[in-house]
Amino acid sequence: MAKSKYEYVKKFERNDSLLPNTWLVIRVDGRGFHKFSDKHGFVKPNDQKALELMNKCAENVMNDFRDIVLAYGQSDEYSFVLKKECSLYDRRETKIVSTIVSLFTSNYVFNWNKYFPDKELLYPPSFDGRVVQYPDDNNLRDYLSWRQTDCHINNLYNTCFWALVHSGKTETEAENVLRGTVSSEKNELLYSQFNINYNKLPEMYRKGSVIIRQEVEMNTINQKGLDVTRKKNIVTVSHEDIIRDEFWKKNNSKLGLKF
Amino acid sequence: MAKSKYEYVKKFERNDSLLPNTWLVIRVDGRGFHKFSDKHGFVKPNDQKALELMNKCAENVMNDFRDIVLAYGQSDEYSFVLKKECSLYDRRETKIVSTIVSLFTSNYVFNWNKYFPDKELLYPPSFDGRVVQYPDDNNLRDYLSWRQTDCHINNLYNTCFWALVHSGKTETEAENVLRGTVSSEKNELLYSQFNINYNKLPEMYRKGSVIIRQEVEMNTINQKGLDVTRKKNIVTVSHEDIIRDEFWKKNNSKLGLKF
Amino acid sequence: MAKSKYEYVKKFERNDSLLPNTWLVIRVDGRGFHKFSDKHGFVKPNDQKALELMNKCAENVMNDFRDIVLAYGQSDEYSFVLKKECSLYDRRETKIVSTIVSLFTSNYVFNWNKYFPDKELLYPPSFDGRVVQYPDDNNLRDYLSWRQTDCHINNLYNTCFWALVHSGKTETEAENVLRGTVSSEKNELLYSQFNINYNKLPEMYRKGSVIIRQEVEMNTINQKGLDVTRKKNIVTVSHEDIIRDEFWKKNNSKLGLKF
Amino acid sequence: MAKSKYEYVKKFERNDSLLPNTWLVIRVDGRGFHKFSDKHGFVKPNDQKALELMNKCAENVMNDFRDIVLAYGQSDEYSFVLKKECSLYDRRETKIVSTIVSLFTSNYVFNWNKYFPDKELLYPPSFDGRVVQYPDDNNLRDYLSWRQTDCHINNLYNTCFWALVHSGKTETEAENVLRGTVSSEKNELLYSQFNINYNKLPEMYRKGSVIIRQEVEMNTINQKGLDVTRKKNIVTVSHEDIIRDEFWKKNNSKLGLKF
Repeated sequence: MAKSKYEYVKKFERNDSLLPNTWLVIRVDGRGFHKFSDKHGFVKPNDQKALELMNKCAENVMNDFRDIVLAYGQSDEYSFVLKKECSLYDRRETKIVSTIVSLFTSNYVFNWNKYFPDKELLYPPSFDGRVVQYPDDNNLRDYLSWRQTDCHINNLYNTCFWALVHSGKTETEAENVLRGTVSSEKNELLYSQFNINYNKLPEMYRKGSVIIRQEVEMNTINQKGLDVTRKKNIVTVSHEDIIRDEFWKKNNSKLGLKF
Repeated sequence: MAKSKYEYVKKFERNDSLLPNTWLVIRVDGRGFHKFSDKHGFVKPNDQKALELMNKCAENVMNDFRDIVLAYGQSDEYSFVLKKECSLYDRRETKIVSTIVSLFTSNYVFNWNKYFPDKELLYPPSFDGRVVQYPDDNNLRDYLSWRQTDCHINNLYNTCFWALVHSGKTETEAENVLRGTVSSEKNELLYSQFNINYNKLPEMYRKGSVIIRQEVEMNTINQKGLDVTRKKNIVTVSHEDIIRDEFWKKNNSKLGLKF
Repeated sequence: MAKSKYEYVKKFERNDSLLPNTWLVIRVDGRGFHKFSDKHGFVKPNDQKALELMNKCAENVMNDFRDIVLAYGQSDEYSFVLKKECSLYDRRETKIVSTIVSLFTSNYVFNWNKYFPDKELLYPPSFDGRVVQYPDDNNLRDYLSWRQTDCHINNLYNTCFWALVHSGKTETEAENVLRGTVSSEKNELLYSQFNINYNKLPEMYRKGSVIIRQEVEMNTINQKGLDVTRKKNIVTVSHEDIIRDEFWKKNNSKLGLKF
Repeated sequence: MAKSKYEYVKKFERNDSLLPNTWLVIRVDGRGFHKFSDKHGFVKPNDQKALELMNKCAENVMNDFRDIVLAYGQSDEYSFVLKKECSLYDRRETKIVSTIVSLFTSNYVFNWNKYFPDKELLYPPSFDGRVVQYPDDNNLRDYLSWRQTDCHINNLYNTCFWALVHSGKTETEAENVLRGTVSSEKNELLYSQFNINYNKLPEMYRKGSVIIRQEVEMNTINQKGLDVTRKKNIVTVSHEDIIRDEFWKKNNSKLGLKF
């Protein structure tokens, strides 16, 4: 169709292609989720259904974008790792981040009712996104360790905080009790005062969720009507430790990492 | 809370603050909306309800972000103009674009049922976003003229195309009829063959939608129980021509533009 | 010539084109010039020859790059203003800044002997460069006012400092005398103790140097051997006040500025 | 000193820090060196003195910036490799590239007379610079292979071209002779027509120049007046093949590369 004299304005768009051969991490974060979780009565410190909804959104994002090799989520955030060779949208930064954030958000609203059938979504939630480039496998792994450490630190704190609050303390009192305590003291507090063995709490709360593609064998019927077994890659959620070596030894080659 | 040894990975984040004192345009675009509109049986060439849903999303984005002074939408896209002085999120590019795209998307899914009560949303739609900086008022106005010209060109073409298809031609035949025709020929075709006066079609289809904040007087009752009139800025949708001077003469000072 | 299998590495180059229709300022700064001026025995607080050499370098840079409309220099720095419409090297940032810094540096070493015929250049001096984009005429003018204000503040201080040192004080004593003094006190100190009327000092020291292109009439002899007058644009150095309106009223249209 | 109301203009400077943990290559290129070499009567196809001057400039740049681990030069270009961990100037792109280009240029003019004592420098030469980031050791090595391959291809062509021109052909005739020829044909042409064994030509012409830091033992006299041997890193120029493995096997650990 005819070009208009106004088309010169396209030249003001910046070429924002990211560096080739570099891991790309897209992190999606809930916007104003403190208020959102209050308004929607999320269970504290962890709402299982809310976390499962987050996982569902991440799975669907991974199913849409084959270049995502791993996703890690905790609380109201999810990180997506795009492989180094990824050429999605010519590696244009805002195109990639906006599309992934949009698809994640869309899934959140779309699937709300499946996870909260009795709870009306009161207003549309939103997320922001950012992109970080990691040139080296070790940097990428440290990024993921950082997020899982963050999950652990926050969850231990929140478990104590809400145990105190549910036992009758005010939020300010609970904060005062916890100020300056180290991990071992928080574990002890949970055990002695509330009979909670922190390490027995659900792994999803303590470790967050890791999604990778696993090869599975599926029984199916072929065109001739015979039973056959076919291999397929499907995204699978677990709550493993991704700080220690074990996870990486198992999955390195699959993920294209060299350690 | 304690810092972990992994926190160095934050240093890999790029500072992507945009240039100060420059108009920012965020354009949100439907991803795969050709298929999406087919699957959901949108009326061709224009689905009034689908356009009204887009407008609703844009209104809600404007109500959330006060720095947006104007929005313009057509088809499956919407452009948001942030004022030059905007300091939203320190003008960080990916933060701004991801948040706006996310909120727009969230509203789309959230409000679907209000506009399509009898039509189930089959899968979660998504949008991408981009940011363009315009240093000069004239560049900004030319950008908006470009989008409205695009609306006109596409809509005239699509109106002809679907008239031909609805009259029994195949899509390929319709394309062949229209190839190489200029605007006047398309107008003539609509009038002579289908008795359609293009200029009498709804303005929303021909011009798209413009949203600005208008000061309105609202009657209310004050604390003493008396009727009072108060002024309030509310976002209002119109379908005006934003290429010609008239719109700008009326709204320049309000929008902070100098022509 | 044949392409090699290694050429893919070119794709790692970033497209760093600057925003169109925006003033570009390239500022060149001496690297380690405190030491450089000591080693080469520059007169303190101002070495006329050293400043004239800086001006010469800037003139030659302006003669080479026609897109530079104005240059402003003081001390060991020079700022070059490229017009908004400039399409030099497709507005690629590092290409522009590296070339201008290189040409400036080259001129400095090349012309050293003309300004210091009796002083050997002991080692190769160097400069760094940066690029700043200004979307608006007023931002650009404020940038230039900032540099000239900086020139004034530093020069007044340095004039006092070196007067005190030359009169026998140590550098530490001179600093102590000046600590916390305002401009009027410094002026008074110069006048009462050293009989220096600051405002009578050479303008180049107090105001720095401004270079613009001026149209001049040149008498020449044409091909028929007749005396003729031709107009030519030549770069001219002055030491005017560029903070107040007068300079801009005189030169706005020439420079393409709108105030 | 007092801040002025104009200082806000500093906020328009972009933070252009490069990605951490990534190889940085700064390539310096002669600007208009075809003309420059003509005007200064450089010997064709290779002027030994001009190449040695380039090497001298690169050595001095390396001596100034300890973060440069390797430099490779050919014709009128030089590439400097900064180690991954380099934190020079907080990895700010324009600061790094402008300073290196400036220092290189300054050395070129400063040292001209040492290499061309009988040849006056007619005008100030200049260079441009660019920065490329390489996340991976193999990408970096491929970059260097690309430049050395370029050296070989250009030098073989130029050797033939100038042999033909020196033998009486016009430049156009020489181009016609060489059009479409492959390497083996060019080698054959040199040997059969000009009795030149290309592989016997100086390595500097065929391979370019590589500069790295080598540990050398230096005999010196210590404070007690005794002869002692001390180890020192000094920059050394060679003309080795950097495409094949041998060079890298020898120097990997020194350069911090993993192959």
